[in-house]
Amino acid sequence: MKVQKIPEASIVRLSVYSRHLARLDHKGIVTTSSGEIADGVGVSPAQVRKDLAYFGEFGTRGVGYNVKDLHRHILKILGLTNDWPVVLIGAGHLGTALSLYRGFLERGFKIVGIFDNDPQKVGQPLGNIDISPMEKLADVIRKEKAKIGIIAVPSDYAQEIANLLIRNGIKAILNFAPRAISVPEEVELRNVDLAVNLEVLTFKLSL
Amino acid sequence: MKVQKIPEASIVRLSVYSRHLARLDHKGIVTTSSGEIADGVGVSPAQVRKDLAYFGEFGTRGVGYNVKDLHRHILKILGLTNDWPVVLIGAGHLGTALSLYRGFLERGFKIVGIFDNDPQKVGQPLGNIDISPMEKLADVIRKEKAKIGIIAVPSDYAQEIANLLIRNGIKAILNFAPRAISVPEEVELRNVDLAVNLEVLTFKLSL
Repeated sequence: MKVQKIPEASIVRLSVYSRHLARLDHKGIVTTSSGEIADGVGVSPAQVRKDLAYFGEFGTRGVGYNVKDLHRHILKILGLTNDWPVVLIGAGHLGTALSLYRGFLERGFKIVGIFDNDPQKVGQPLGNIDISPMEKLADVIRKEKAKIGIIAVPSDYAQEIANLLIRNGIKAILNFAPRAISVPEEVELRNVDLAVNLEVLTFKLSL
Repeated sequence: MKVQKIPEASIVRLSVYSRHLARLDHKGIVTTSSGEIADGVGVSPAQVRKDLAYFGEFGTRGVGYNVKDLHRHILKILGLTNDWPVVLIGAGHLGTALSLYRGFLERGFKIVGIFDNDPQKVGQPLGNIDISPMEKLADVIRKEKAKIGIIAVPSDYAQEIANLLIRNGIKAILNFAPRAISVPEEVELRNVDLAVNLEVLTFKLSL
């Protein structure tokens, strides 16, 4: 596959399509079309076809897509046919909310360690696990084979925590601190800025 | 302006460009180029030019963009030259984290009311305000002229809360519950699914 040139927006949409296909499958619907998927998620049918075309030929002309097959293909593309252990740094309000967020586990992301440097928090239960001290981070990453780390610490500590995660073998970081951090080229990074979502709304309200 | 056809991804990128321009301005940089902006945020220069072109002519050929001017223009496009009062429903872990999230206030989003139906939570302080009972929602929306509502309640209540917000005059909803909700066409809706961010990472890790 020539995957280097695929826009990140297409990956985000594949993720959204897969949720729609899961709903169709759940309803017992066997075949669908780019038009139906497009309607279901609010993009154009041409966009659906273009996004899928990056990954080969799906579906049959005049018949459409088999819902289960397409769903399975997309999950495979997204790397979601196996589960992903995740470590989470920061057990403040956001970290707590993320550790309890049901949307992660539903998609195969299992939080295998929650870490904080506050002695008051260490040892407290959060969901199914106890909050660990930072000193245990290296052990947990190795033992659980975690490749993904989520940063939910105050902005001033985000870069330091990113460095620590990378030194201990983490290959992909999701950063919720509202501060840009930098990582080596071989590490995948995604900064989540929750305010961007509100700005899409205010753009539309301002038209 | 012909704004109907602008892809949502372009709006998201404008929001990202504006953050980069704020950083450049902060550093005292006066002019920039599509190439510099592109490097700073990780897209192609052509993409930057295309996104900006939806909104008219910016910059001077051979000179580039004036950082302050372009920043102001983008903030205006995004509707961010004025502040936006926001009501937040749900004072659980996610609601608490969102109410304390500094990234909102930095972009002009002020949470003017936090609502919960748990009598144990009502009256408790959260940030600068106290948690209100649901019965006060209509009053606060009217008094504060709030147009935006954030839903951070359990999935099973998300649709009901959306209906309540809309009945009370809310025009745009940001939904954090991992459940699709439906709204009338004239209401703007954005569903935030935090797992999508992890899936962009697993896609890349799976290459």
